[in-house]
Amino acid sequence: MKELQIEVTLSSTRKQKPDFDNLVFGTVFTDHMFVWDYTEGTGWHDPQIIPYQPITLDPAAMVFHYGQTVFEGLKAYLTKDEQVLLFRPDENMKRLNRSNDRLCMPSIDEELALSALKQLISIDREWIPGVEGTSLYVRPFMIAIEPHLGVSPSKNYRFMIILSPVGAYYKEGINPVKIAVESEYVRAVKGGTGNAKTAGNYASSLKAGEIAYQNGYSQVLWLDGKEQRYIEEVGSMNIFFKINGEVVTPELNGSILEGITRKSIIELLKYWNVPVVERKISIEEIQQACHEGTLEEAFGTGTAAVISPIGELLWKNEKMIVNNGEIGTLSQKLYDSLTGIQNGTEPDPFGWTVRV
Amino acid sequence: MKELQIEVTLSSTRKQKPDFDNLVFGTVFTDHMFVWDYTEGTGWHDPQIIPYQPITLDPAAMVFHYGQTVFEGLKAYLTKDEQVLLFRPDENMKRLNRSNDRLCMPSIDEELALSALKQLISIDREWIPGVEGTSLYVRPFMIAIEPHLGVSPSKNYRFMIILSPVGAYYKEGINPVKIAVESEYVRAVKGGTGNAKTAGNYASSLKAGEIAYQNGYSQVLWLDGKEQRYIEEVGSMNIFFKINGEVVTPELNGSILEGITRKSIIELLKYWNVPVVERKISIEEIQQACHEGTLEEAFGTGTAAVISPIGELLWKNEKMIVNNGEIGTLSQKLYDSLTGIQNGTEPDPFGWTVRV
Repeated sequence: MKELQIEVTLSSTRKQKPDFDNLVFGTVFTDHMFVWDYTEGTGWHDPQIIPYQPITLDPAAMVFHYGQTVFEGLKAYLTKDEQVLLFRPDENMKRLNRSNDRLCMPSIDEELALSALKQLISIDREWIPGVEGTSLYVRPFMIAIEPHLGVSPSKNYRFMIILSPVGAYYKEGINPVKIAVESEYVRAVKGGTGNAKTAGNYASSLKAGEIAYQNGYSQVLWLDGKEQRYIEEVGSMNIFFKINGEVVTPELNGSILEGITRKSIIELLKYWNVPVVERKISIEEIQQACHEGTLEEAFGTGTAAVISPIGELLWKNEKMIVNNGEIGTLSQKLYDSLTGIQNGTEPDPFGWTVRV
Repeated sequence: MKELQIEVTLSSTRKQKPDFDNLVFGTVFTDHMFVWDYTEGTGWHDPQIIPYQPITLDPAAMVFHYGQTVFEGLKAYLTKDEQVLLFRPDENMKRLNRSNDRLCMPSIDEELALSALKQLISIDREWIPGVEGTSLYVRPFMIAIEPHLGVSPSKNYRFMIILSPVGAYYKEGINPVKIAVESEYVRAVKGGTGNAKTAGNYASSLKAGEIAYQNGYSQVLWLDGKEQRYIEEVGSMNIFFKINGEVVTPELNGSILEGITRKSIIELLKYWNVPVVERKISIEEIQQACHEGTLEEAFGTGTAAVISPIGELLWKNEKMIVNNGEIGTLSQKLYDSLTGIQNGTEPDPFGWTVRV
């Protein structure tokens, strides 16, 4: 494992830590952050860990105008015996570089970036809440910083990592959520940036999410951009259904994010010998399964919420109730197993967790 | 006309002005900038003109992660009698608010924003190059500044205006450019953000543009995201064709930007009694017109380049040559008339220009 040589400047004061029993997602940040700049011709240079502080950018920095930015999200867990565990961080670094490629941004050395991430977490280790259901959310991201108006890839970039102690992503917790199937707005289309973790995908998703929220729904279920018929994602999560004993999830098609939780669930189900298939799934198929009583479970998956069971799907004024609006047995088992592996209370037969 | 009360802090020093005969687009900025903050609950507050300087944002500012950002682009011209003219700036402000709505960002008072723009230009008036073909490029933009990780609209925003003296956008100038028709990547799809002027559209366009550039083409021609058959835009411009005496341009369909130059050209053509139609145009139709010898002209339109004639379209290994690779009579006339109105050397029968 390569180690990045980082110049470390520790904060002279430490911030008051929040109440770890009442954390709000993504609002409090730790004492330090990691910064690494890229300059065309020079490459990546001057990696630093410095006190958490505002960053200073020219108003013409290209990120503000042309949106070259990618990010990742993962979590660090404190085990009962005070170990710090990361969950498949190598997968995040791989995906970061796939996103970089799509956005014409420079690739980063995955091992060195992971080394930086570990060093930062070690320094802010006291910020990892040990309370059940909590973790330290890790946000690596990269932005275009060249001051230049004109549509072309930026010459200069900044890669940063910030840390935030978090509770559950959804206030509803592991309770099933109500989802509205979106028929007007589209998240992404093949040939676009749907499979990259880049800001524009999230910006474009807000409007439909807001309308759904005003109507009493937590998130929207996205259909494909071509026919608005095939299921893609739910909110900012991947989606799974259990139909007649078989688990199905939309196949990766270029417009769906390649979720690491998604991948882990497929591997876990295969390990358990539960039938799981990646394929196209139309909304009509889900409707039919619901009518026939074979739609047994539905859930979203992602780093933030891990598993988010779906209790109701609204489509064209029809409310499809899933499992009487209750969490399904498999959803619960997946949540318990995956979070158990992540926080070290369950064995990890896959070698997914990495000690910091 | 409402006037925005702005707190003005003038720069104690003035920057060296660049050589106005050799301006590069979007790299040099004037002495001052306009800043106006929005806070949920308070609304827009504390408008300021201050010396051009870096801005300071929390690394968790939502613009870096979830891409809520919109912008506009327009130009100020110095006339021969030392008047400063803007071209249809009210249209930019209207579009800014349409973009804001799509991105779940707060609307701005269009008259007050325009008043701010005029005050800023007045202060940096000496930066407007009087040289032919040059102008002062005006970039209003708005970014989400709330420090918060979690996909939802930001509570706080910053609206800014920066100014840059510019020469021609394309180094090739008014010479016809070679365009590659894009068959793999997609810029936008109906239901997405294609008709909003937001960063994500530009970020997603870079990859195809880079590949085209490496193959010797200036830009790509985008086809629709559903069938990859109907023409949408060219690079970051709208597109027009003259076929058998009639001018055609893709109709506004939700995924095409509602260009102000596009709109002006349609109005100018109607004023001249030149037949002009907005409708769906397939790439096969252009190919057929090329084969039949009825494809007389093709050109892109936008604020930056105004008119950018197209000399060649590459589609599936076929090079379609337009007007022998030379600028067409109508393209030249449109360029001359529109730039003439913009810089005050031609009469403005439409009342498009606004004096600062």
